[in-house]
Amino acid sequence: MHYTKEDIAIMDPKNRLKLINAVSGIKPANLIGTISDEGVPNLAIFSSVVHLGSDPALLGFILRPTGAVPRHTYDNILRNNQYTINHVHASFTKKAHYTSAKLDRNLSEFEACQLQAEFLPSFKAPFVKESRLKMGMNFLEAIPIPRNGTFLVIGEIQHLIVPESAIDSRGEIDLEVLDVAGISGLNTYYELKKLDWFPFVRVEDLPNIKF
Amino acid sequence: MHYTKEDIAIMDPKNRLKLINAVSGIKPANLIGTISDEGVPNLAIFSSVVHLGSDPALLGFILRPTGAVPRHTYDNILRNNQYTINHVHASFTKKAHYTSAKLDRNLSEFEACQLQAEFLPSFKAPFVKESRLKMGMNFLEAIPIPRNGTFLVIGEIQHLIVPESAIDSRGEIDLEVLDVAGISGLNTYYELKKLDWFPFVRVEDLPNIKF
Repeated sequence: MHYTKEDIAIMDPKNRLKLINAVSGIKPANLIGTISDEGVPNLAIFSSVVHLGSDPALLGFILRPTGAVPRHTYDNILRNNQYTINHVHASFTKKAHYTSAKLDRNLSEFEACQLQAEFLPSFKAPFVKESRLKMGMNFLEAIPIPRNGTFLVIGEIQHLIVPESAIDSRGEIDLEVLDVAGISGLNTYYELKKLDWFPFVRVEDLPNIKF
Repeated sequence: MHYTKEDIAIMDPKNRLKLINAVSGIKPANLIGTISDEGVPNLAIFSSVVHLGSDPALLGFILRPTGAVPRHTYDNILRNNQYTINHVHASFTKKAHYTSAKLDRNLSEFEACQLQAEFLPSFKAPFVKESRLKMGMNFLEAIPIPRNGTFLVIGEIQHLIVPESAIDSRGEIDLEVLDVAGISGLNTYYELKKLDWFPFVRVEDLPNIKF
């Protein structure tokens, strides 16, 4: 199939949403945890968390001001400058997916989806107990993307919690051992199997590599 | 393990790079193809392609002005406003990974890594023949992220090529059938196994869901 820009523009909106949400390849599955001024914990699934840099340790995610993802996450972040990013594992993709329901602001997705909130001393935002890799984030800024009204929300890692057993002999986090899930499109979840590890590439190696 | 911001700040830079590049979860593996004014095709692997919106169909990726990824990709994009995004499949992760070598500007990673360039009429940037899902992109803008000197490069899909056989009965792209690869950290490649599909979530369904 070959779709041009014009074909995409006139597609049925539901089919276009399904198709275009899947073309970037596999997406990370993360739950973002926040808390309201009234103390209601909020949890929402995001597939757009992206690495921005390691020193300082910055992550971004794309926020749609309106649409499928409720504003509660962003409102809470703006109030107390904190949020958590929690890995979704293959063992609880269903609970994670159902956090996308548009719950009232005074209801918690933790309760509705049967996930447990846990807290660190002196950090307001709730972590997901079931997540084995999780981060407490300090909100830095939201950069507007005027093209389509979205935002790139940028935060710095304040706390990083990762089980020692998930770090392999090379010092790499093993996503298969961690049982990490990925997302395609809006609704499909994948599990991961480790395939290959390659060294840092030097130009002088190229002619000698067997492909 | 619990790392605080302060622990991360004083880590050995190589270990920090490895760790922080892996914490966002699985990342998509894409090859970005461009061409220079002199007609030299360029190819580079990126793990930061992110969905921005479906109408118009926008994708972004994060560009580091200096460091591991050479500037050739960005220079070429600025010259002719075109680039391609090509999926990396499990069958050629090694070739894809080795495009990260810092080749001279007059050498093509296609040749050095034994991947084949192919072209569409009236589109300058080269596609990867071996990729089954590929997109011709029109460059729109690069939004600076002053925090760490990176850029969010935004483009619109002009051409989307996807095999009909990879679209399942629900109209979803099947990344397992497509044999799509994911990346963790800087060097580790994963293959994908489809796990679950869940419907769009309505609030009224929640009390009736069996988790």
